[in-house]
Amino acid sequence: MPESPFWTQDSLEDLVSARSKIMGAGVWAAARPDDRPVISFAGGLPDVPSLPDEELLRATRAVLDTERREALQYGGTFGPQPLREAIAERSSGIEGIPLTAEHVTVTSGAAHGIGIACEALIDPGDTVLVESPTFPGSLRTFVSFGAQIEALPMDDEGLLVDPAEEALKRLADEGRRVKLLYLIPTHQNPVGSTLPLARRDQLLELARDHRVLLMEDDAYGELWFGDEPPPPSLFSLSGGELAIKVASFSKIIATGLRLGWNLAPPTLITRMAALRYDMGSSPYLGRTVAEMIRNGDLDRHVERLRAIYRRKLDRLCEAIDEHCGDYVTYQRPGGGFFVWLGLHQGLSAIEVQRVANEKGVLIGAGPHFFADGNATQHLRLAFSYTPVEEIEEGVHRLGEALREVAASSAVK
Amino acid sequence: MPESPFWTQDSLEDLVSARSKIMGAGVWAAARPDDRPVISFAGGLPDVPSLPDEELLRATRAVLDTERREALQYGGTFGPQPLREAIAERSSGIEGIPLTAEHVTVTSGAAHGIGIACEALIDPGDTVLVESPTFPGSLRTFVSFGAQIEALPMDDEGLLVDPAEEALKRLADEGRRVKLLYLIPTHQNPVGSTLPLARRDQLLELARDHRVLLMEDDAYGELWFGDEPPPPSLFSLSGGELAIKVASFSKIIATGLRLGWNLAPPTLITRMAALRYDMGSSPYLGRTVAEMIRNGDLDRHVERLRAIYRRKLDRLCEAIDEHCGDYVTYQRPGGGFFVWLGLHQGLSAIEVQRVANEKGVLIGAGPHFFADGNATQHLRLAFSYTPVEEIEEGVHRLGEALREVAASSAVK
Repeated sequence: MPESPFWTQDSLEDLVSARSKIMGAGVWAAARPDDRPVISFAGGLPDVPSLPDEELLRATRAVLDTERREALQYGGTFGPQPLREAIAERSSGIEGIPLTAEHVTVTSGAAHGIGIACEALIDPGDTVLVESPTFPGSLRTFVSFGAQIEALPMDDEGLLVDPAEEALKRLADEGRRVKLLYLIPTHQNPVGSTLPLARRDQLLELARDHRVLLMEDDAYGELWFGDEPPPPSLFSLSGGELAIKVASFSKIIATGLRLGWNLAPPTLITRMAALRYDMGSSPYLGRTVAEMIRNGDLDRHVERLRAIYRRKLDRLCEAIDEHCGDYVTYQRPGGGFFVWLGLHQGLSAIEVQRVANEKGVLIGAGPHFFADGNATQHLRLAFSYTPVEEIEEGVHRLGEALREVAASSAVK
Repeated sequence: MPESPFWTQDSLEDLVSARSKIMGAGVWAAARPDDRPVISFAGGLPDVPSLPDEELLRATRAVLDTERREALQYGGTFGPQPLREAIAERSSGIEGIPLTAEHVTVTSGAAHGIGIACEALIDPGDTVLVESPTFPGSLRTFVSFGAQIEALPMDDEGLLVDPAEEALKRLADEGRRVKLLYLIPTHQNPVGSTLPLARRDQLLELARDHRVLLMEDDAYGELWFGDEPPPPSLFSLSGGELAIKVASFSKIIATGLRLGWNLAPPTLITRMAALRYDMGSSPYLGRTVAEMIRNGDLDRHVERLRAIYRRKLDRLCEAIDEHCGDYVTYQRPGGGFFVWLGLHQGLSAIEVQRVANEKGVLIGAGPHFFADGNATQHLRLAFSYTPVEEIEEGVHRLGEALREVAASSAVK
């Protein structure tokens, strides 16, 4: 046995793939709890007390009683058939178009769903259009496949169509191949905006004309708080033809399952399933969740979650108005996990984040969410994970941080 | 909505990645049960009656009682930490070298473990050396990454070292970059051979001299039937330096979990975890299996499985000797799921498979397992899945098929 490792990070450089060279040795670890008595608005994590452990255990018992053999054996790379069928039936109701299992592939969560779409679509040098700001985890995946990223501007209602069209024309003129337009049309992360119906239709026209797929990240779509659901998905509006809708059980059951689904045209579902090397997502887990859909537990749970998150958002907005109103503007989101604060002129997001952190409140700083990494005057508050009784105190501390930073900015 | 699909398999060709073009639209679906009263020796599937459903349910309940919050939240791409630790401790005993969680990453099964190693190591055009014959699922994955495959010859004890060395020298002379040598050293699939200790040491010397990683597929390593375990793994013999050992809970708990692990030098573990886009394998499942390791259920179950499969193998060998002895030769494996039959001169494997199928017995034909697809005179019998009471009847039918094919071959 040699004294020092044979394969060091340096000597490995000689052995690893181009993709590994892009990604290096930085590993995404789940956040560890902070030892201090902090209040966190940092991560887009679900509410903990309501995690449906009893429903999971009940469904697991039912599956092991009645589908033991199938649940404990291979299920194929399309995904466990009963879950595909349960998703298709449930989605037909949500989407308002008739869907079958052929439109569904089961994934190991939305991040995996985005990844397998990239495996099927992206070659190094291809271009991916994204909203700016957007979810940085997805950017990381696109970049790992060697994609060139083009950021598109948004307004309060979401992606702007004209600049998207101009970008598509310009990139075509430059001879660049655009494969995907990635967007989070409903309860956008980090902004919270929901794209109006008219813009959705315009985007679909663009996608058809330019033969570009829309990748619609819908991790938060079911968590709406108003009297009416948000507009239909891009997938639904195109009759299931022009978009991949990436969805997940992470935010409506638990992130720790690692289970989700993609809706897409059957031809594309097949291409994604064909190159999976993992022999498919877990039939054991998949059949458990199919049971939760069939027995009604999932729909009842989603109803409960809407009320829980609506109440947290109410509390957050009241507290912002009371403690931060002099320093920020914001737009109340119709659903999802996030409120996006615009800081008044002269306040630095990074500086506010630092001072708030010292006061024991964790928040997301805007620059993190921009593909170009440019500093911006924004903060993201995730209200989903924070216990409802801590929200007011957390925002109170943020208000103090804003006051301090404003005072020291005024002095300078 | 257009009358015909917008993205057809043909028009999609314009949009998909190079990797998708290699793999096309053929999807691996789990085998469906045959409606006929067939006896199957076809798939390497575990014994059904012994699948540990009660142990899984007990562990699930314990995890939801005591680790609910952690089990239902993100766990990071290295894998759930308690499972990494439980695997490291258990593997330290099995491997005979001290291992920590740093040597372990949790995967979604061995096929996924092989895939993420390819993501980290293989660029299109790289060469992968493989045993011939070998497991075709792994070949499929290597090819999907654009690897060139070089098949290496084996004898009754496994991979031959001298031809491997000659191949490495020749490929170096040709300027080809060999990244991996993939082998199944213990209870090889399909052959059943186990590589002797001396050859393992020689292979490690080769790997060190040529700076090639050994990828050691060990899906069957723990299922040995003799008085003594097989020789230590290549990973263990190199002090954890020169090999990736790919392992799985599929054959010792259930294929339907989709859970496994890779052991590798920590530098390489990091590179594999860094480019996972799926946010890690399921903490919910991972902590359930960690509980089965900690409470001793897994080790007790593996003991039981050894006895179950040993008994099936005994029954199979008796039946082969009685019904097929005039037409085949074979070597009794020391463990695993497979017996590899060599057909006497003049008998076609494909023809025997066809006639046996007509008689209601399913077997694997040799050519399927060779990288070059050449016809061979071999059959693979998987004895793991077949109910013990059907084994004799199944082999009896195979014997009839052999007699018929031999008679018609003699006539020609």
